Amino acid sequence: MLIVQKFGGTSVGDLERIQNVANRVAKSKDAGNDIIVVVSAMSGETNKLIGYAANFSKNPAAKEMDMLLSSGERVTSALLSIALQEMGYDAISLSGRKAGIHTDDIHTSARISHINTDNMREKISEGKIIVVAGFQGITADGDVSTLGRGGSDLSAVAIAGAMEADLCEIYTDVDGVYTTDPRIERRAKKIEKISYDEMLEFASLGAKVLQNRSVEMAKKLNVNLVTRSSFTENEGTLITKEENIMEQPIVSGIALDKNQARVSLRNVKDEPGIAANIFSTLAENNINVDMIIQNVGHDGNANLGFTVPENELENAKEIMEKLNAAEDLEFDSNIAKVSIVGVGMKNHSGVASTAFTTLADNGINIEMISTSEIKISMIVDEKYSELAVRSLHEAYNLGQRE
Amino acid sequence: MLIVQKFGGTSVGDLERIQNVANRVAKSKDAGNDIIVVVSAMSGETNKLIGYAANFSKNPAAKEMDMLLSSGERVTSALLSIALQEMGYDAISLSGRKAGIHTDDIHTSARISHINTDNMREKISEGKIIVVAGFQGITADGDVSTLGRGGSDLSAVAIAGAMEADLCEIYTDVDGVYTTDPRIERRAKKIEKISYDEMLEFASLGAKVLQNRSVEMAKKLNVNLVTRSSFTENEGTLITKEENIMEQPIVSGIALDKNQARVSLRNVKDEPGIAANIFSTLAENNINVDMIIQNVGHDGNANLGFTVPENELENAKEIMEKLNAAEDLEFDSNIAKVSIVGVGMKNHSGVASTAFTTLADNGINIEMISTSEIKISMIVDEKYSELAVRSLHEAYNLGQRE
Repeated sequence: MLIVQKFGGTSVGDLERIQNVANRVAKSKDAGNDIIVVVSAMSGETNKLIGYAANFSKNPAAKEMDMLLSSGERVTSALLSIALQEMGYDAISLSGRKAGIHTDDIHTSARISHINTDNMREKISEGKIIVVAGFQGITADGDVSTLGRGGSDLSAVAIAGAMEADLCEIYTDVDGVYTTDPRIERRAKKIEKISYDEMLEFASLGAKVLQNRSVEMAKKLNVNLVTRSSFTENEGTLITKEENIMEQPIVSGIALDKNQARVSLRNVKDEPGIAANIFSTLAENNINVDMIIQNVGHDGNANLGFTVPENELENAKEIMEKLNAAEDLEFDSNIAKVSIVGVGMKNHSGVASTAFTTLADNGINIEMISTSEIKISMIVDEKYSELAVRSLHEAYNLGQRE
Repeated sequence: MLIVQKFGGTSVGDLERIQNVANRVAKSKDAGNDIIVVVSAMSGETNKLIGYAANFSKNPAAKEMDMLLSSGERVTSALLSIALQEMGYDAISLSGRKAGIHTDDIHTSARISHINTDNMREKISEGKIIVVAGFQGITADGDVSTLGRGGSDLSAVAIAGAMEADLCEIYTDVDGVYTTDPRIERRAKKIEKISYDEMLEFASLGAKVLQNRSVEMAKKLNVNLVTRSSFTENEGTLITKEENIMEQPIVSGIALDKNQARVSLRNVKDEPGIAANIFSTLAENNINVDMIIQNVGHDGNANLGFTVPENELENAKEIMEKLNAAEDLEFDSNIAKVSIVGVGMKNHSGVASTAFTTLADNGINIEMISTSEIKISMIVDEKYSELAVRSLHEAYNLGQRE
């Protein structure tokens, strides 16, 4: 098998951990696999460099930031390669350039345009373990570029796609995707396999394991992605296409996002285009509106409600007050979004009604609802949110057998 | 004028110092010059990375070390570029690759093969301040290489040569070349101009200002080199070709090297080729023999004496004892080498006799002598070495007027 293994900053956070990574890579190689490793900068390094740059400028040039920030991954890749060589393995570190990773020229948030795999294919055919400096590539001008947040994951997924790897393992400090946050529900179970679409829902609902960009790319390139821990031997979670998952549960997991706030407009002015005006103004100000409900009040006036991320509430407030679009404005950050995710619900009715019944039985009021083919999200009072998660987790029978 | 300015690790040792460097560069630019800056890694960074590598391997692969070590200069060049941009200057950082520095493939001690100046010329013609990451280049395979000790100086001199710069300023923490070590003779005077050949003698005699590799390259490429301090506004010392120095003093300075030891062989065995055998064995063991004297003793037996660097004495001892080449072996590390340097002495007799008279007047015995066209070196008892330096410094009238 050809396996791409990506180790994040925490996994290579100090020299001992880099040695542990070397041991783990060696073990995979000994098992007969071809290995391409992708590494991040040692944890803290990138932030240190960002701090250095901030000392000189509030708005340093993106191109210079890329020159600066791309150094950390190079250090880790060289160190890991040295560790592997010392253990007797034929390893070689490759910068993004030498790995053939080409990007557009949007410095600090470049997109991978294509990967020239010639060099990597040659090194793999020679039996070498390749250690790629993640997070970076080169522009058409040959300048170093970086891929932005989660960039090393992207490097790994893109390389796995281009090299047609059998597996792309993303090592972090958590050992996979759980049916819900184990800190909320101790019986939360690690999910063995999950589809790309479900993972995308989980990621956008606040699960920190993987960023959407990486999952989207994995889906597009049909890369079998595994998220697992570099600190344990536990099997992780495989993220793959739906067809690869034989027994698809109806509901895969419950997500909770407390970073939610609600804006309520009562007695919205009766002017044409007022709603459009509200939402286009919010969009212009980069405020992410999530759920929206509109209804007609008892007196015939319209009421409008929508949710925004809690940290964008202050901006939203200012804008709404300036717009002066309604008689009454209310803002509430004591809400949370509880979501049920599962590709199985496409073909099964009754998922929603189970949710509504469960919450009602627990005396939890549902303030807003939105649904997609594979997700039901509900806004509830924040203080009931953990109870909502636990009761739904049980209602769909997601817990570990004890 | 086109000026190349090189700042070493101490000069860019922290963020405040990098800002100071930016101010200094800006001042040169404001004076109407075109500027190419060459920077080292922040002091301590390279040693930190070497320590990291040593944690994994006693003998890490040179190619990986280059990947590792080349990161430090990239960081400094980006930071300095950001600082200059913030001050309103159009600056750009260039890696060794982007500066067009091509080397052979002897990793960690590569030699510059040629410089493709197209990119630098273009940037200079656009009025940009170029900030080059020193110490690095690329091999014919496109891999990063580093130039070894003093590599950033070499980068600067080579760039100055290739770009036909008017001046190459090497900034360190000392403000130039002195007639002798000011810690020994407080009246030591900074030398305004000195020839390449004299500087080469000074460097090989233990002056720490510049390494011979850089001076040799400057001589070869006819680069006007200035060594000066980044911490003061003092003028430095110009190192240039002899013809550029109008009033050449007969003696330029006095150098002292205490890192010397003597090996004496009495009654060397009367075998053909015994001396050749001794010196070839020492050479094979990388022991640098400096002065050699041979004479015939009273009894007709040959005596042989030579000097080696003090830190190589132990090895030399072992080898001499194994060779068993003489009846008597003596080792003495309490000696020092005092040297008089000056291109003027080529055309002036009497320099040597002044030295001998001066030392004799001070009761200092000269144990060995070697001379070149522009240098007289004498081995004396270490405890008299400072006295020798001071009395010679006065005899040639090198001191500052007080």
